[in-house]
Amino acid sequence: MAEWQTYLHEHKDRFINELIEFLRIPSISSLPEHTSDVQHAAEWVEARMKAAGIESVEIMPTGGHPVVYGDWLHASDKPTVMIYGHFDTQPVDPLYLWDNPPFEPIIKDGCIYARGASDDKGNMFIPIIVTEALLKTEGSLPVNVKFLFEGQEEIGSPQLPDFISANKELLSCDLILSADGGQWEENQPALILGTRGLAAIFIDVQGPDHDLHSGTYGGTIANPIHALVEILDSMHEKDGRITVDGFYDDVRQLTDEERGQIGQTPFDEAEYLGEVGALSTFGEPGFSTHERAWARPTLEVNGIYGGFQEEGLKTVLPSTAHAKISCRLVADQNPSKIADLVQAHVNKVAPPGVKVTVKKSESGAIPYLVPVSEPGMRIAGSVLREVYAKEPYQVRMGGTIPAMGIFLQYLQTYTIVFAFGLKDERQHSPNEFFRLSSYERGQKAYGMFLHRLGEQYLR
Amino acid sequence: MAEWQTYLHEHKDRFINELIEFLRIPSISSLPEHTSDVQHAAEWVEARMKAAGIESVEIMPTGGHPVVYGDWLHASDKPTVMIYGHFDTQPVDPLYLWDNPPFEPIIKDGCIYARGASDDKGNMFIPIIVTEALLKTEGSLPVNVKFLFEGQEEIGSPQLPDFISANKELLSCDLILSADGGQWEENQPALILGTRGLAAIFIDVQGPDHDLHSGTYGGTIANPIHALVEILDSMHEKDGRITVDGFYDDVRQLTDEERGQIGQTPFDEAEYLGEVGALSTFGEPGFSTHERAWARPTLEVNGIYGGFQEEGLKTVLPSTAHAKISCRLVADQNPSKIADLVQAHVNKVAPPGVKVTVKKSESGAIPYLVPVSEPGMRIAGSVLREVYAKEPYQVRMGGTIPAMGIFLQYLQTYTIVFAFGLKDERQHSPNEFFRLSSYERGQKAYGMFLHRLGEQYLR
Repeated sequence: MAEWQTYLHEHKDRFINELIEFLRIPSISSLPEHTSDVQHAAEWVEARMKAAGIESVEIMPTGGHPVVYGDWLHASDKPTVMIYGHFDTQPVDPLYLWDNPPFEPIIKDGCIYARGASDDKGNMFIPIIVTEALLKTEGSLPVNVKFLFEGQEEIGSPQLPDFISANKELLSCDLILSADGGQWEENQPALILGTRGLAAIFIDVQGPDHDLHSGTYGGTIANPIHALVEILDSMHEKDGRITVDGFYDDVRQLTDEERGQIGQTPFDEAEYLGEVGALSTFGEPGFSTHERAWARPTLEVNGIYGGFQEEGLKTVLPSTAHAKISCRLVADQNPSKIADLVQAHVNKVAPPGVKVTVKKSESGAIPYLVPVSEPGMRIAGSVLREVYAKEPYQVRMGGTIPAMGIFLQYLQTYTIVFAFGLKDERQHSPNEFFRLSSYERGQKAYGMFLHRLGEQYLR
Repeated sequence: MAEWQTYLHEHKDRFINELIEFLRIPSISSLPEHTSDVQHAAEWVEARMKAAGIESVEIMPTGGHPVVYGDWLHASDKPTVMIYGHFDTQPVDPLYLWDNPPFEPIIKDGCIYARGASDDKGNMFIPIIVTEALLKTEGSLPVNVKFLFEGQEEIGSPQLPDFISANKELLSCDLILSADGGQWEENQPALILGTRGLAAIFIDVQGPDHDLHSGTYGGTIANPIHALVEILDSMHEKDGRITVDGFYDDVRQLTDEERGQIGQTPFDEAEYLGEVGALSTFGEPGFSTHERAWARPTLEVNGIYGGFQEEGLKTVLPSTAHAKISCRLVADQNPSKIADLVQAHVNKVAPPGVKVTVKKSESGAIPYLVPVSEPGMRIAGSVLREVYAKEPYQVRMGGTIPAMGIFLQYLQTYTIVFAFGLKDERQHSPNEFFRLSSYERGQKAYGMFLHRLGEQYLR
């Protein structure tokens, strides 16, 4: 066993206790009353990075929650990797569903339970520990390393693009590792080649200026709910295809090779349906479920409301109706262009008698796709293959990690997801947990990755 | 002036004070905490009817709020009229919009302000007063009179059909007067020939058994909001026509004469749109606004909800979506048949991947239409013509008075709306009021009606 691995093993209990300390900070980025806790988490990270021997550590303002930057840049002629993660968490409601208070971590059956344990504090702390172990045992790192930890991932990283754009020099690097993300299963690694982007719009339909009696006025004045369902129904074919003009124009089509790779990832439909509790799968004809989730764009109504919604009947012709829509995008769709196309569609189909307003959401993220041949991806694959003793699947994520698209856009640098959370760990839900076995495996994998990067990466 | 009219004039102040006493009872039928107040109102009506000289007065149970029955049946060889009204009221919320507490009546500028003043306590008290005046001055009534006052009109008279059906003998009569309803304008009377019926259904769409991450699952699992908008949008043509199979089959078509009558009622589109605050009128092609509101059926979504409805964006693929639908019906549509047709339509168009459930509402009302040639209608017309010195319009109501359909169904007897509320009197809204001029005019009209009925009606 290498010295750095022995160090990690010997300080194992301390690293668990430190993670517990980190998890005690209720750094919920979406709730204004927790703003000082997010700041507190940034300070905790700053202190811990310094203690690990990381240099130039600094809390940097973004206009929203801060980022923490640090680096170690003494490996001349070696590549520079930037490691990304986030120290903010999701909210905890509904609190009553938690078996244990969300910010009082406990260890049970080899897992640590707390909000943020898997997403992302447990994962983002790993590279800090590994850096400490390498510096303490080897006196240096095998490559140059920059660290960028943010405090607003869970609210869509609204100020991150401007921050990155304004600090291109500081953040320039050869590749990026994301300590946010995950593996396929406890004993099955995966390389994540892509994440979907996001564009969102809000539709407000205004009919009469107050709720009307549906007896007196029904049949004579346009009902804004009718107008809204007409607009929304016009956005899909019955088979699930999206009918917005130009929506698919920039979609990079799957190659036969890519479809082959995706097809190699096992898919058990009964298990899949069991997880979601649905009657059947449903989606765009001509594509498998994994292809639909990973390589095809969507347009989903996330919420709809209008008129009377309580128990029983109230015979109103309502004044307004509303819908929230988000699209998941794939390479090479552009969020701003897609939002414009959806807006144009709404304006085109809006029926008479009502006023239809479309607001584009500030939440947008460009889709992300990295070639499997990227040198960093090959190294990640070799590390995972060894640590898990399994060939990694080549997968994509249906979800969105805005930072990866932002990095590609502003730094022209690919991000390799190198994180060890698993999808059953209830990220965003009550009783979130992180496996201590993943915590240890992640430490080993990060140490190996940095070493192999120093040995194999050609700048 | 006839003696009974002099009596009404001399006791005018007492009748106002008694109405104030009646209006002080917060008999809100929809709120369980006011159940005893509805009972209290029934007792007040019972006592007041007895004091007026009405006989056989009795509070009768219905299974819900009670009815108060009474009669005076000593006009042998004369027809029997039953007078209907209700002593329950709408709720008062939002309370802060009332200038004066809703159950502390005040008189201001010739109007009495209180919840229930116009709908329906002020109106239903009129025939009681008139009966007292006739009995005190003439010693008898010109016709036989039965009184049926109910306490659950504002919740859709759920127990009234069973009550009527179980008491056909007691309630048998030659015609019915409804003291619930209204006139066209302060100086313009109207004969109400029809009211629309009601059928309602609730649609629940179940997708996955919990809200899903729209990134992970978007595009692979049917979204229940999409399914719901597809179902709802399939119910209308773009021009407003209802596409449910068989929906219009039993609609009695307007004759040219009827369309002529309706066309004679003035309609000012700018004023109408100003009242509702809408951009334009909208509805079934080939019909005027009054025809649409009075003589054509509707299918309106009264409420819709599903997924995320708060501020901002939450990228869920929701578990469920819901809609509440009510149809206004016209002669000779049957509420139960229409609910079945709408249910069949939903089942026919329900898309795959979700579970769609249709619940039929217990709120149903058969549509009502009385021939203008009905003897009672002719007498009502002659009284209104004299009292207002104006030819009454022949109109219909877009709304629903369930009792009128129930009476026609179970007693095979037509109901003549003979009431004096006006549509600006904020029934169901804050600051409801009733004009004291209408109160007096109604008393005169009821006295004249009973006399003319005794003179002109041929059994």
